[in-house]
Amino acid sequence: MLTDLPLDQLESYRSSQTEPPDLDDFWAGTLAEAAGHDIGLRLSPVATGLTTIDTYDVTFRGYAGQDVRAWLRVPAGHPGPLPAVVQYVGYGGGRGHACENLFWASAGFAHLQMDTRGQGSGWSVGETPDPAPAGPQVPGVMTRGILDPASYYYRRLYTDAVRAVDAARSLPQVDADRVAVLGGSQGGGLAIAVAGLRADLAAAVAFVPFLCDFPRATRITDSYPYREIADYLKTHRESVERVHRTLGYFDGVNLARRAGAPALFSAALMDATCPPSTVYGAFHEYAGPRRMLLWEYNGHEGGGILDEVRALEFLREHLAA
Amino acid sequence: MLTDLPLDQLESYRSSQTEPPDLDDFWAGTLAEAAGHDIGLRLSPVATGLTTIDTYDVTFRGYAGQDVRAWLRVPAGHPGPLPAVVQYVGYGGGRGHACENLFWASAGFAHLQMDTRGQGSGWSVGETPDPAPAGPQVPGVMTRGILDPASYYYRRLYTDAVRAVDAARSLPQVDADRVAVLGGSQGGGLAIAVAGLRADLAAAVAFVPFLCDFPRATRITDSYPYREIADYLKTHRESVERVHRTLGYFDGVNLARRAGAPALFSAALMDATCPPSTVYGAFHEYAGPRRMLLWEYNGHEGGGILDEVRALEFLREHLAA
Amino acid sequence: MLTDLPLDQLESYRSSQTEPPDLDDFWAGTLAEAAGHDIGLRLSPVATGLTTIDTYDVTFRGYAGQDVRAWLRVPAGHPGPLPAVVQYVGYGGGRGHACENLFWASAGFAHLQMDTRGQGSGWSVGETPDPAPAGPQVPGVMTRGILDPASYYYRRLYTDAVRAVDAARSLPQVDADRVAVLGGSQGGGLAIAVAGLRADLAAAVAFVPFLCDFPRATRITDSYPYREIADYLKTHRESVERVHRTLGYFDGVNLARRAGAPALFSAALMDATCPPSTVYGAFHEYAGPRRMLLWEYNGHEGGGILDEVRALEFLREHLAA
Amino acid sequence: MLTDLPLDQLESYRSSQTEPPDLDDFWAGTLAEAAGHDIGLRLSPVATGLTTIDTYDVTFRGYAGQDVRAWLRVPAGHPGPLPAVVQYVGYGGGRGHACENLFWASAGFAHLQMDTRGQGSGWSVGETPDPAPAGPQVPGVMTRGILDPASYYYRRLYTDAVRAVDAARSLPQVDADRVAVLGGSQGGGLAIAVAGLRADLAAAVAFVPFLCDFPRATRITDSYPYREIADYLKTHRESVERVHRTLGYFDGVNLARRAGAPALFSAALMDATCPPSTVYGAFHEYAGPRRMLLWEYNGHEGGGILDEVRALEFLREHLAA
Amino acid sequence: MLTDLPLDQLESYRSSQTEPPDLDDFWAGTLAEAAGHDIGLRLSPVATGLTTIDTYDVTFRGYAGQDVRAWLRVPAGHPGPLPAVVQYVGYGGGRGHACENLFWASAGFAHLQMDTRGQGSGWSVGETPDPAPAGPQVPGVMTRGILDPASYYYRRLYTDAVRAVDAARSLPQVDADRVAVLGGSQGGGLAIAVAGLRADLAAAVAFVPFLCDFPRATRITDSYPYREIADYLKTHRESVERVHRTLGYFDGVNLARRAGAPALFSAALMDATCPPSTVYGAFHEYAGPRRMLLWEYNGHEGGGILDEVRALEFLREHLAA
Amino acid sequence: MLTDLPLDQLESYRSSQTEPPDLDDFWAGTLAEAAGHDIGLRLSPVATGLTTIDTYDVTFRGYAGQDVRAWLRVPAGHPGPLPAVVQYVGYGGGRGHACENLFWASAGFAHLQMDTRGQGSGWSVGETPDPAPAGPQVPGVMTRGILDPASYYYRRLYTDAVRAVDAARSLPQVDADRVAVLGGSQGGGLAIAVAGLRADLAAAVAFVPFLCDFPRATRITDSYPYREIADYLKTHRESVERVHRTLGYFDGVNLARRAGAPALFSAALMDATCPPSTVYGAFHEYAGPRRMLLWEYNGHEGGGILDEVRALEFLREHLAA
Repeated sequence: MLTDLPLDQLESYRSSQTEPPDLDDFWAGTLAEAAGHDIGLRLSPVATGLTTIDTYDVTFRGYAGQDVRAWLRVPAGHPGPLPAVVQYVGYGGGRGHACENLFWASAGFAHLQMDTRGQGSGWSVGETPDPAPAGPQVPGVMTRGILDPASYYYRRLYTDAVRAVDAARSLPQVDADRVAVLGGSQGGGLAIAVAGLRADLAAAVAFVPFLCDFPRATRITDSYPYREIADYLKTHRESVERVHRTLGYFDGVNLARRAGAPALFSAALMDATCPPSTVYGAFHEYAGPRRMLLWEYNGHEGGGILDEVRALEFLREHLAA
Repeated sequence: MLTDLPLDQLESYRSSQTEPPDLDDFWAGTLAEAAGHDIGLRLSPVATGLTTIDTYDVTFRGYAGQDVRAWLRVPAGHPGPLPAVVQYVGYGGGRGHACENLFWASAGFAHLQMDTRGQGSGWSVGETPDPAPAGPQVPGVMTRGILDPASYYYRRLYTDAVRAVDAARSLPQVDADRVAVLGGSQGGGLAIAVAGLRADLAAAVAFVPFLCDFPRATRITDSYPYREIADYLKTHRESVERVHRTLGYFDGVNLARRAGAPALFSAALMDATCPPSTVYGAFHEYAGPRRMLLWEYNGHEGGGILDEVRALEFLREHLAA
Repeated sequence: MLTDLPLDQLESYRSSQTEPPDLDDFWAGTLAEAAGHDIGLRLSPVATGLTTIDTYDVTFRGYAGQDVRAWLRVPAGHPGPLPAVVQYVGYGGGRGHACENLFWASAGFAHLQMDTRGQGSGWSVGETPDPAPAGPQVPGVMTRGILDPASYYYRRLYTDAVRAVDAARSLPQVDADRVAVLGGSQGGGLAIAVAGLRADLAAAVAFVPFLCDFPRATRITDSYPYREIADYLKTHRESVERVHRTLGYFDGVNLARRAGAPALFSAALMDATCPPSTVYGAFHEYAGPRRMLLWEYNGHEGGGILDEVRALEFLREHLAA
Repeated sequence: MLTDLPLDQLESYRSSQTEPPDLDDFWAGTLAEAAGHDIGLRLSPVATGLTTIDTYDVTFRGYAGQDVRAWLRVPAGHPGPLPAVVQYVGYGGGRGHACENLFWASAGFAHLQMDTRGQGSGWSVGETPDPAPAGPQVPGVMTRGILDPASYYYRRLYTDAVRAVDAARSLPQVDADRVAVLGGSQGGGLAIAVAGLRADLAAAVAFVPFLCDFPRATRITDSYPYREIADYLKTHRESVERVHRTLGYFDGVNLARRAGAPALFSAALMDATCPPSTVYGAFHEYAGPRRMLLWEYNGHEGGGILDEVRALEFLREHLAA
Repeated sequence: MLTDLPLDQLESYRSSQTEPPDLDDFWAGTLAEAAGHDIGLRLSPVATGLTTIDTYDVTFRGYAGQDVRAWLRVPAGHPGPLPAVVQYVGYGGGRGHACENLFWASAGFAHLQMDTRGQGSGWSVGETPDPAPAGPQVPGVMTRGILDPASYYYRRLYTDAVRAVDAARSLPQVDADRVAVLGGSQGGGLAIAVAGLRADLAAAVAFVPFLCDFPRATRITDSYPYREIADYLKTHRESVERVHRTLGYFDGVNLARRAGAPALFSAALMDATCPPSTVYGAFHEYAGPRRMLLWEYNGHEGGGILDEVRALEFLREHLAA
Repeated sequence: MLTDLPLDQLESYRSSQTEPPDLDDFWAGTLAEAAGHDIGLRLSPVATGLTTIDTYDVTFRGYAGQDVRAWLRVPAGHPGPLPAVVQYVGYGGGRGHACENLFWASAGFAHLQMDTRGQGSGWSVGETPDPAPAGPQVPGVMTRGILDPASYYYRRLYTDAVRAVDAARSLPQVDADRVAVLGGSQGGGLAIAVAGLRADLAAAVAFVPFLCDFPRATRITDSYPYREIADYLKTHRESVERVHRTLGYFDGVNLARRAGAPALFSAALMDATCPPSTVYGAFHEYAGPRRMLLWEYNGHEGGGILDEVRALEFLREHLAA
């Protein structure tokens, strides 16, 4: 059943999220610090047993110069330069196994799949730690360091995601002018954020994105992971305002306003994890060219493989791929 | 938590399933009838957008000469002959989208993924109907025609699965002496059944197989799809014996005794859908060389990608692939 | 709690369902084909052990001349002619056991309880098969053949229901001018459909009817069986329009507009299975005289025995019974 | 799935329940007190609209001479004397509506369906209050007055049930030598208790009986209503022994040892409400001739209509009915 | 997630509850009858092992002069007179253990915690029975005697609560001019009721109060205990009007209009047990000075310890404590 | 219902946990490192509004000299020296609010309630961070750093707990020879661990302790937090052995063998969170004098306030308090 507004109301819905006055300064400072560390790219080939795809175990320097892992998959023996897809993964997972997720390389792209710090134990594995102190928090990462934007978990992860683009552009197999970011759920939220934080992307793809429109999201769904924030505020009753202040720096609604790359979004009318109004909250603010794939009878699986197939068409168009 | 016996008891567990006296005649007659129809293989190339894999939409004749669909995926431009994997899919799903499931072709195999008649609407889509009358039944296919082995749904599906091997062996890209069957859950049950029903396979792989040890399975789990049978018997109280008589013709325990190809099984100690004792029930009867992958802390997802990676090693060994 | 609109909004709610232009032709053709088969009525007395009711096992020819079973119950030894109630049953069930459902015969009616093809395994048993091919579908019958009105399961069942009226009128014990149709849930949906498809009924009774107002029903509830349609569209994402086109031929909203017999409906404000707005969607369109029993604190059980007691009063009034 | 021991272990299972030394005195005193009140039988005909059954609203004096309601249903116009079935109803319900439960009268019996004091609001309605003080208790009646056998709710209800037999034997329509008691769940527990408390019954029928083998029942199931007792002991931690002492006076295991009438029991292997071992706990102690209907794939619905049909055969045999 | 209206709509929400014309007479008569019995206060010291608090087991006469238990806790050795808090407890519980709930005495108040008749077996224990006949009802006390205001359970409990104030004022340790009532959930509903029923209170505190705005509460939540009423009406379908008539005498909305003492309320936007609109329904009618603590991300736990800490500040202000 | 072995089998159950050969070295090194930092005790009085208890906000240095918070509560104005209870809290919570948990100070003890690093957001709040890198993990702390005993979260928390005893003994209000440790669930596991790690305790109290008998606990329950470990191993399939190696250093079974202080345990037969066999696994190994409170009908709430009251008696006996 519908978990949120019907379609006609989504068209006119606008998020109530507001912008912190120093939002741009906050991110400029954060990214400058990270850029002060050399990208430190390291690749080592992986014996996957696959014959049509070459796979590399990648390490680069992300937030505070900390090591972040990734997989690079390219069509076997292709000399490049190739158009590239930088993919971010969903909440709880990691970059997964080298033999998973063969779609983008099989379609002829250089595919850099970034690991997610400190997660990587839910639906897929990861190997990147989150070397940062954690204050009192509810289980998960949604409230790790949430009392201050400077210590919030997603400051580190968004920065990793931005640096992954630098890593991709540094790869010998990649044509640096044809780099797109892509992801679903948390990965979609990261794609929006990165689109808002850098100007050199060829395209951005966000399937059923998470991390958008926190004021509404934390009130209209009981599903995790948005609910982690509500769980936290349930005991930290006097921190409601402070928590929402922090979230303003990370909300896709605010970052979408800064984006320029052509973007493909998807949303699903029966999605309880990332309710469609929160996706539209960011979509309506997205400042670049934008298109929406709307799935009427889907939950958080969204368009599934059709989301990816449509994204392939979209990227072929925008990356001349 | 453990959903079944602990490991040491699984080692010594034996199924109480018994064999219908005319089991071999039943299947000999059934398969002879199907073989009386030409295999009627039709291939048409599919524009998937993938560059490393060539994909074909396949149709062949299965039970009663009825059309069954499949995907054939091969490494792009490879002349063959290739070793082949015939894959059967899990309950509720179908052959899925052409762009899904790229592992086996990416690993250099001809990969024939058979659609499942009348399912194909759950976790993945299909296009093959089940053109057969349906008596009163509970939702699903587990009790379709269950009062008689001749009308039982799985008579048709097992026959399709056997004929898919014929289809694979007829393909120009395939080396007919190096064909393996593989699947998970219902697909694993089909792989065991096919291994018991024909002698020309190079190997069989069954991940957390379904359709094994019905006398125990219908009593120790509340999970679907085994529970469909219990639901049926809940109202059809006087058909208990008759239903179990039918199931005897289809139980992996009975068919495993007739198998000869080297087999790789997997089982998971926390699997409520296909409890491990039911898998061991078939495994202990399997007459060919056999190996078990046991996952201690997994449910019905079993070994996930690791099951596939280990199966790749296993098939390289047995198919000289 | 309320599962839908409050009462005042139900009064003014109107369904958004639209009519296929060829709706009347579709049904005229379908029913003419069925009427081309002789009704083929067969009765055999059943030894139930009951002394106040005579029971017969009935077979007649329904859709495509296929055999449909029913029970006929009449007051023991009554010579007739009697007023008759043709009853259709709820989703998943069948005509049940001969000793169940004694109310209408005990009240002096000839009571013909039709079996439901291919169901009859849920809350009550049945014996009528559905001899038709089934395409890929989700478990249940809601999506069996749903891509085309010609192949949709309910085309066959609605036709059986229409023919059951012919069967009833052919019975020696029945006064053909005093035949009513009645049912709850799916049975109520069938009663509305039959009321829309034939002009010779004395009355129609639909308790908490199902099969009404599909555009809303598939979006506002998570309960089965409406949810089967949403489940199907979840994977068959590109068939949304086509599925709704099919449903238009079967929607009680559309068929109610063609009805003339006096009708008694019931609805319940806490019904999640057949939300009250969907019942009102059909009720407001019902073209004959109509009355609503509204239950404020009930779910899908509706008025329970009170629905039947009020229906008895209603039928005594309209059938001079 | 099985909720309890498998069948072979049920055959040899014996309850650990022990007998209070003054069990017989307790009940002799209790019943003598009740018998000191005139049975006070009052009948008034009810206009049900049914033509094959005559129905009466019955009141008689039960525990402490308090009024207890019942329905009497007899074949219309039958002069009697008839064999009689005294029926007790399941937990939470009451005697229901006059138009429900027509089976036994339609089969030619005088059918006295006793209301249940203070319940009658769950699955069926009632009108008999429980005019007794209630100590602290958990919701429901299982722990009402449980700290002392003298104040326990079931002392009153068991006494009502015994007096209902006196009421039935006093009815002009009834042959006093052919009275049976019957019920399901709580009704079955009452039937066993009454069979143990009086010697003049022609037969007893207990479908999936409740109120048996409390020491085991309160420990092996989480289902209500047994769980009410566990809920009570969860906070009244120091009353474990005292509560079990009270229950000893009411346990079907103890009362079955005193029974003499031929009995038909049913049990279901997948019953979580009244797990089969607790039924066998009473069955194995039952001192009269006994027979068990065992349902392998049923829950607490047991044999449903088949339980009743088999009971009809059983009662025809033992009541020469 | 929000379980009810958003905050801005709560501000303007008004309950649809109406007043029985004889509401004042009903309560005047009821309370006069109770006041006709001597308060019969009995105290006995309890050896708790605590050194900073003196505890007494208290008995007083409540409704119909029946004994009601309570705990009195005072700072050890304090001569008085002290300001007093009379506390009522939540649904299902009782006065609990003597060693629980030390906050108010530790803060320097005389703390009289009243037991709840016939409950005291859920989350905390009690020892006060409810010596009254119970008609047919659903488990719990919400529908005990609900067909008539004179027999309704809450008539007795509200009267006990009023008499507890008399008991407190009679205590030698208490300054009778500085008595407040306080409670959460059911206890909060009682506090509002008592505030409406007597004029001599210094203050009233109601955390997330229950027993308010029944017309809305019984329709917008599925949570117990409000749902007990819906459950009752589900089978007692013809008593809807009668039940609501009874509830009108007990609704906090109606009693709040009669209150004069300064009051502190709390409500929580994610409370499904006592949805915030029902709390606002009473709050907006409250005739004395009133203040609301609103918790944005809480369920029925409301403000937890913060509710109590704020209540302490509030009572220090109003009781000069 | 019973969640584990019945009582007689618990008496003879022994855990299969084994000891790492360097267990004593591991802890000696860890604690020596911590002891190398000055305890750094800081107290500041808190204005709670309570009059019978003086409360202090305490900070001391725990693992790696990192600051750990606590509350100190003492009877108001008491000069000391007092016997002391060091309390550890349950999983997810923190030291809570200053006004909560007044029992031990009201009973005349100095009560030091230690905060839990990085938790403090579940059922009660905390303020102590966990300043340590976190590898990939599932939500919660059970798998934080679990691949190595040196990085495991509980290495830090156990060390904090040991240092809290040093903090208590340093307090001017405390008699250093009369210090006990106490806690429930995680707090009970910490009490057992501390009892095994230091020799100067007067007593230890562990209610329904957690963190005991991991080999069994991770296999017999689906409840969190033990299930976090199973969740981790579900994706980190190849780390089973390594994870269990780490857990051996922290298992209460192993640490109990090193304890000498008199201990009071509690366990509950219906506890799914900390199943009773896992508690008995540690209890049977406990090397000091030991006593068990067994609750037959309780879940993880165990004995509730009765556990505390019995612990008060126990501590008065052993601390001459």
